[in-house]
Amino acid sequence: MANTKMKYPEVMNYIGGKLIPCKNGKYFDKISPVDGSLLSKVHISSSDDLNEAVNAAQKAFIEWSDKTVKDRVQILYKYKNLLEKYHEDHARIIHEEIGKTIEEGRQEVSKSLELLEFACSMPQVATGSILNVSAGVECRTEHIPLGVVASISPFNFPHMVPHWTLPNALALGNTMILKPSPAAPISPIRIAELLHDAGLPSGVLNIINGERELVEAICDHPGIQAVTFVGSTPVAKALYTRASANLKRVLTLGSANNHLILLPDANPEMAATNIIASFTGTAGQRCMSACVLVAVGDCNHIIQRIVELAKAIKVGTDMGAIINAESRDRIKGFIDRAERDGAKIVVDGRNAVVEGKENGVYFGPTIVDFANPNSEIVTTENFGPVLTIVRVKTLEEALGVANSSPYGNGSSIFTQNGKSAQIFVQKIEAGMVGINVGVPVPREPFGFGGWKDSKFGTGDITGESSINFWTKTKKITTKWNPEAKVNWMS
Amino acid sequence: MANTKMKYPEVMNYIGGKLIPCKNGKYFDKISPVDGSLLSKVHISSSDDLNEAVNAAQKAFIEWSDKTVKDRVQILYKYKNLLEKYHEDHARIIHEEIGKTIEEGRQEVSKSLELLEFACSMPQVATGSILNVSAGVECRTEHIPLGVVASISPFNFPHMVPHWTLPNALALGNTMILKPSPAAPISPIRIAELLHDAGLPSGVLNIINGERELVEAICDHPGIQAVTFVGSTPVAKALYTRASANLKRVLTLGSANNHLILLPDANPEMAATNIIASFTGTAGQRCMSACVLVAVGDCNHIIQRIVELAKAIKVGTDMGAIINAESRDRIKGFIDRAERDGAKIVVDGRNAVVEGKENGVYFGPTIVDFANPNSEIVTTENFGPVLTIVRVKTLEEALGVANSSPYGNGSSIFTQNGKSAQIFVQKIEAGMVGINVGVPVPREPFGFGGWKDSKFGTGDITGESSINFWTKTKKITTKWNPEAKVNWMS
Amino acid sequence: MANTKMKYPEVMNYIGGKLIPCKNGKYFDKISPVDGSLLSKVHISSSDDLNEAVNAAQKAFIEWSDKTVKDRVQILYKYKNLLEKYHEDHARIIHEEIGKTIEEGRQEVSKSLELLEFACSMPQVATGSILNVSAGVECRTEHIPLGVVASISPFNFPHMVPHWTLPNALALGNTMILKPSPAAPISPIRIAELLHDAGLPSGVLNIINGERELVEAICDHPGIQAVTFVGSTPVAKALYTRASANLKRVLTLGSANNHLILLPDANPEMAATNIIASFTGTAGQRCMSACVLVAVGDCNHIIQRIVELAKAIKVGTDMGAIINAESRDRIKGFIDRAERDGAKIVVDGRNAVVEGKENGVYFGPTIVDFANPNSEIVTTENFGPVLTIVRVKTLEEALGVANSSPYGNGSSIFTQNGKSAQIFVQKIEAGMVGINVGVPVPREPFGFGGWKDSKFGTGDITGESSINFWTKTKKITTKWNPEAKVNWMS
Amino acid sequence: MANTKMKYPEVMNYIGGKLIPCKNGKYFDKISPVDGSLLSKVHISSSDDLNEAVNAAQKAFIEWSDKTVKDRVQILYKYKNLLEKYHEDHARIIHEEIGKTIEEGRQEVSKSLELLEFACSMPQVATGSILNVSAGVECRTEHIPLGVVASISPFNFPHMVPHWTLPNALALGNTMILKPSPAAPISPIRIAELLHDAGLPSGVLNIINGERELVEAICDHPGIQAVTFVGSTPVAKALYTRASANLKRVLTLGSANNHLILLPDANPEMAATNIIASFTGTAGQRCMSACVLVAVGDCNHIIQRIVELAKAIKVGTDMGAIINAESRDRIKGFIDRAERDGAKIVVDGRNAVVEGKENGVYFGPTIVDFANPNSEIVTTENFGPVLTIVRVKTLEEALGVANSSPYGNGSSIFTQNGKSAQIFVQKIEAGMVGINVGVPVPREPFGFGGWKDSKFGTGDITGESSINFWTKTKKITTKWNPEAKVNWMS
Repeated sequence: MANTKMKYPEVMNYIGGKLIPCKNGKYFDKISPVDGSLLSKVHISSSDDLNEAVNAAQKAFIEWSDKTVKDRVQILYKYKNLLEKYHEDHARIIHEEIGKTIEEGRQEVSKSLELLEFACSMPQVATGSILNVSAGVECRTEHIPLGVVASISPFNFPHMVPHWTLPNALALGNTMILKPSPAAPISPIRIAELLHDAGLPSGVLNIINGERELVEAICDHPGIQAVTFVGSTPVAKALYTRASANLKRVLTLGSANNHLILLPDANPEMAATNIIASFTGTAGQRCMSACVLVAVGDCNHIIQRIVELAKAIKVGTDMGAIINAESRDRIKGFIDRAERDGAKIVVDGRNAVVEGKENGVYFGPTIVDFANPNSEIVTTENFGPVLTIVRVKTLEEALGVANSSPYGNGSSIFTQNGKSAQIFVQKIEAGMVGINVGVPVPREPFGFGGWKDSKFGTGDITGESSINFWTKTKKITTKWNPEAKVNWMS
Repeated sequence: MANTKMKYPEVMNYIGGKLIPCKNGKYFDKISPVDGSLLSKVHISSSDDLNEAVNAAQKAFIEWSDKTVKDRVQILYKYKNLLEKYHEDHARIIHEEIGKTIEEGRQEVSKSLELLEFACSMPQVATGSILNVSAGVECRTEHIPLGVVASISPFNFPHMVPHWTLPNALALGNTMILKPSPAAPISPIRIAELLHDAGLPSGVLNIINGERELVEAICDHPGIQAVTFVGSTPVAKALYTRASANLKRVLTLGSANNHLILLPDANPEMAATNIIASFTGTAGQRCMSACVLVAVGDCNHIIQRIVELAKAIKVGTDMGAIINAESRDRIKGFIDRAERDGAKIVVDGRNAVVEGKENGVYFGPTIVDFANPNSEIVTTENFGPVLTIVRVKTLEEALGVANSSPYGNGSSIFTQNGKSAQIFVQKIEAGMVGINVGVPVPREPFGFGGWKDSKFGTGDITGESSINFWTKTKKITTKWNPEAKVNWMS
Repeated sequence: MANTKMKYPEVMNYIGGKLIPCKNGKYFDKISPVDGSLLSKVHISSSDDLNEAVNAAQKAFIEWSDKTVKDRVQILYKYKNLLEKYHEDHARIIHEEIGKTIEEGRQEVSKSLELLEFACSMPQVATGSILNVSAGVECRTEHIPLGVVASISPFNFPHMVPHWTLPNALALGNTMILKPSPAAPISPIRIAELLHDAGLPSGVLNIINGERELVEAICDHPGIQAVTFVGSTPVAKALYTRASANLKRVLTLGSANNHLILLPDANPEMAATNIIASFTGTAGQRCMSACVLVAVGDCNHIIQRIVELAKAIKVGTDMGAIINAESRDRIKGFIDRAERDGAKIVVDGRNAVVEGKENGVYFGPTIVDFANPNSEIVTTENFGPVLTIVRVKTLEEALGVANSSPYGNGSSIFTQNGKSAQIFVQKIEAGMVGINVGVPVPREPFGFGGWKDSKFGTGDITGESSINFWTKTKKITTKWNPEAKVNWMS
Repeated sequence: MANTKMKYPEVMNYIGGKLIPCKNGKYFDKISPVDGSLLSKVHISSSDDLNEAVNAAQKAFIEWSDKTVKDRVQILYKYKNLLEKYHEDHARIIHEEIGKTIEEGRQEVSKSLELLEFACSMPQVATGSILNVSAGVECRTEHIPLGVVASISPFNFPHMVPHWTLPNALALGNTMILKPSPAAPISPIRIAELLHDAGLPSGVLNIINGERELVEAICDHPGIQAVTFVGSTPVAKALYTRASANLKRVLTLGSANNHLILLPDANPEMAATNIIASFTGTAGQRCMSACVLVAVGDCNHIIQRIVELAKAIKVGTDMGAIINAESRDRIKGFIDRAERDGAKIVVDGRNAVVEGKENGVYFGPTIVDFANPNSEIVTTENFGPVLTIVRVKTLEEALGVANSSPYGNGSSIFTQNGKSAQIFVQKIEAGMVGINVGVPVPREPFGFGGWKDSKFGTGDITGESSINFWTKTKKITTKWNPEAKVNWMS
């Protein structure tokens, strides 16, 4: 049997504190994009498995929700220590299963740890309020967990994105069904193992692997109170609608096509290194990657430096793999068509090969200059290590290009001028905005969340806003009788 | 023409700062439930009118959203002063159009004023956060208005419910389409007039009158970013689903069937007066009215007092009218069937008549005792001045009855014992909870909002939670170049 | 008797809701610096009067502190309306008693109104916190007023500075002794009259006029729980020490000598108009006035524009009077000595006379250029309409000059460069910092407060920090017995 | 030399990251109250040593204050892990040096860990605020560390009290001089060792051992910006005055004489066990110990149970030692005089001896009943394991006894009645209040702090209030030039 060669044990479901196979016996082979090796076989669950997971989560909810937030975060503190211990191990798994570099894996785990810090702080940030609202009458509030909630996570941050939802949702007293991307199921199981070892009671977290059918079952299951999803916009829209139709609380994060605006007065080295990091990180497979660079006026000296730096990047070392061959081919198609449309391919990553990893899936850093703002390469997300440059004359024009995108995830400006930066911040239609920052992901305690077609639902997925999402509020008004017993001697 | 006898001028739409008729010329007669007199003719708008209103609101949004919150609340302060001046006038209109007593009208306007206080405080409560997140890098947040939003309000609080949404939504920079209940369209127009006089720019608030078709058009209109609704659960569900399918932000509040729990150790006079006020206020037409009283053990001495007080209530003076004859007949049907089911009608309001107001619509306070917990009168909201009593032996049993309701709006306990009150607060499944409080509506700054089938959407409609609903967050990360210019002499 | 010619009735004390004369019959004549006319005779109180005021305040405290914050702010809302009505009237009194222009008086009253907005928001910002800290145990907090508190205010903002303390202290439940500057006693009495008319209960605010002896008595009185003072640093230090020795809570604000830093890349017109406004407003008699302009590199084009604008100012119209002749002479002495020290007097206001107001006290805008950074004119506050310019080569040098001051009230930079502004913000040792802002007073809800020798005590005098100052916290931990009564039938 | 028998190495100072001897060579012998054994010799520092410590702290401040709060708490997270590892070890040291039981030592370290959780949350709770205050103008705030601060801690919680100040002060960017009680110097050095191992930079924390002269030098040292103290009221007053006279920020916590009120309807077992724990914990040497029990009406059945439980306590096992013979004799004196004054000694701990530890210092649980409310045993803190019972008839009377105390640290009521509890909470003059809680210390995030003569200074020593104490606020107002550069092509 091929299984004897698997690098990792087969990925089963984690339900009620146990690793158990899916009921129907289906599975698929998980291949590493790094070198084409077989990593594991992954079970494909159906709604039967989901029912079992929801049952386990509902059962666990009774005791878990009854604990105080102070008690619940003790387990997260312990888990945080274990995660620090296995930091390198988890980084390597991320590398192997989705292809990003080990260093990027390390950074991803670091971000998971930072997200845990926020969750560990929950006793300090999730207090209720209280006030005497009239004579002898007080009103107070309490954050109450919703029940069983679900989180559906993507392939590109198989470790961090579960930490967007899991620690906060659990700290606040919910129990969770985590449904990882089929392309990245190994990291989540490792997370569950460490949480298990940290003392998380059985059933508080359940992981269930599967495909589209399972996602739909989650949206429809009456035992699930809330659903979050991170992935592409069409799916984000469909799930938002479907889960809402089932009267669930929903927050779905979708695609992006982030625009950076470059002014000629930017610090050249700072701008260039930030832009390079932004479009090549995780081989461009990030919803916060730079996609379009709108260069205002004469920015040639900075663009030259970007081109130099891009050419110096070693694929397979400085930059990782693409998740699979379909993705690589899709990206290549975009570049081919851009070339046909008359744009100039100033750095060309189409033929990247990594020696010794010929079965891996790679695509080199690619820069497309002088693109027409209405062309496909500008208007459509390609999710590859591609920077498309559009040339304009004014900041206003640049804002027009950026704001014409249906998405509104992240956007940055590069300039040294305070006023230009302020105008950009005011006018840009995006949820996460940067000044001289390549990847303007807000760090804790600030929440992650885009605008427009990049996010559907109320509030942000992380930070303080997550308290609003993962809880409902109980408002309690107390009045006692007008007089107390006076004479206790009678 | 009958119109010459209308007490109030015809109710048109208020769009772009002007009172204008609906385009199709349709209208209906608005009759007062107090005495059957004709109050006004009310225009029935279609989606053509809605388009105009949305256009006006979109146009107004540009400048309104560009103001600071400090500037915007100046207009609310001025409006608050005007509303104080016209307090009595507005109270009388509420009385005439929906039938509650003038005193209840006064209290409703007082609550509108209190809600305005919260909105006027917005510069203090809607600040962003800022932190240096790494060396030389700061992250900050800003609350950004959504755009044009819509608020659909019910008949029973034609003045207060618009103040749940309008002041906060506007203070935060949105522009609004307000769609009042057809049964109570006069108060909203008066509110608009005062806001107009207070200097609210044209188009920031638009009122549009209409019926079901219009509500659906609001849920479907692509220019509207968010919708709130307060009414019955079937509609609340339908609108939540429909507006969500259009990817809008939605919060809908529905029905209730509130349970009060009475323990024998309660202060008898306090319990009785609170319970009376709770089920007879606004003739029981409140989503926070007492519906079912679950009496634990021997509470006869308190129930007797409740019966006495109920019998002393003068209909038409102490208690107001029912919104219309259909409602009255519906309530009567519930009592008739309860009687048939074997419950005891200990106070019977079915034949209430108010002398001199024979064309008014009235129903007296009604108490149904010894009801079967599974009977219709217990399990179904009747929205009338009816208190149904269920007798049980233990607090646990009482909680079982209360929590079996599909709704979870409000619930209270009456007891002098700290532990019993604590257990109730912990176990009761309701958003607004009271201890010795007949109507546990949280006062500002605490939000209004129920659980289960009483509310759909994330967060509460008033209080701090409303900031999360009426805005999206911009997260800004700022870094400047590593070095400043050092020598300014060269 | 000269009194028959007084423009305003004699200024008595306001104690227990009544205007009453001081017990010892002493008074002085209050002369207007605008034209030397007699405004009023002002009573000079002793500790006997203070005792009476403290008694009244202690008596009033019992009921006032027992009200909810929601009830208390209702009176502030009413007072705010009255102050809006008498805005112009109060502006004129400020003009007459301390000499600033009527327009400056208007702005001062506007600022009082803005401070009232913060206090009116108190129910929203002064809530307590609550959390279940262990199974069945909750902890909650409440802000409790201190008792009788005292506020000692200066002449230069006789209307605004009382509004720094009075509205917040009262909203939070304290009762107050206000001790105005002898040079500006009329405005405070007018404030009291309006509060009286707004329904403030007798004894909640008491005003007592007097001199040094009275200030010392306030610091020593055992019935006073907290003292604030705004004035000069030597007095601020002395009162901080004295009241602390009496174990009172104290916050004292002192002198300043604010430095502005000008970079050559600043927007010339914006910088010049802001700097002019900063050093000439209230004739330079503000703790937030620009005193020293540290010009980096070649700023001649901007300085020329400042000189032009300064020369165009009409004394007596654009700029008001100096509080008294002693002050004018003191300022003149500084300029004379600066001239002798070799600085260049590029605009000279020493001989300013206002036609028709020859008995008024005036000093024209004065600019001293090329001052030695160690000379008296740079290192010592002169509290006049004087801008002293020091020339340096680098931003670092400029920061060195600014930070060598013993004071740390306000400081600003003028530049268009984001990095330069950031460095300034990080390195400048001052509590209130501006970027391209002449007078960087933080607006509500942010607090007013300097660093170093400009302020003594914990926290700021306005904004959220004031809650910490004006209240003590009650922390309440609640646990009920393990079991509630189960069977109520027995 | 006797030193060869010391259980622990000699206690030197910890300055600039190194253990160094005091300069003058003075020391004293630290004896264990458990069994009279020699624990260590402790150095007695003078102002020369203090100067060195302040220099080290000032030097360290430059880099430490420049780090972000996110970076600083990373070291606290590491330290927290180390403290968990050495939990038992530290518990044993506490036991040996101050005599409390090992179990009490464990609980104390647990509380230190909980305090660390709050400090680790600082990035989430110490954010600044930001708002656009007028068109194009934003204002924001930042919490800035004070510099070198000092913390003077008592003997009875040698581990926890340093954690009241140290983690928060350091997290917020200050560097610290810690001056432990001479009676308990070993634990602090162990804390420093772990912080050192966790990576705390040299000089950020400095420990200096000494006596009264050193404390006074701390209050006078111009390099120290803030001082906290926890100890007795006379010293707390003296230090508050002295450090204030030196214009420092000061917060000093003093004595207590806590009153518990017992109503006859209290749950007997719950009340009795809580009261026992409250007056015998740490052998009564806690500022939150029960001192006076005010029994209302007929509480004999509960008091009997308290007496039974007190008699069952095994001294030396269930209850620990008294810090030294002087203390024991002082406590004995109080009991002797109470007996003479006519009170009834119902449980007598005066002759307690622990077999095998005859050189230890012990005092058994003691209950004094029927005390006169004006007698010394009631009005004066004895700081021993003594419960004095006063009998009264009404709750009002009981509140009168409790509120007549000059102290206002903690106070609790025992009752099952909600109204009685509410009246107690409203009327009791104490900072930390309990309902059915023996020791009403608020847990994090709520602050520790009493009222009246139990605390001097603004705010509480722990929790959110500590941010106000350990930082000053920088308020930054930013405006950029009216127009940005438009055409970048020219």
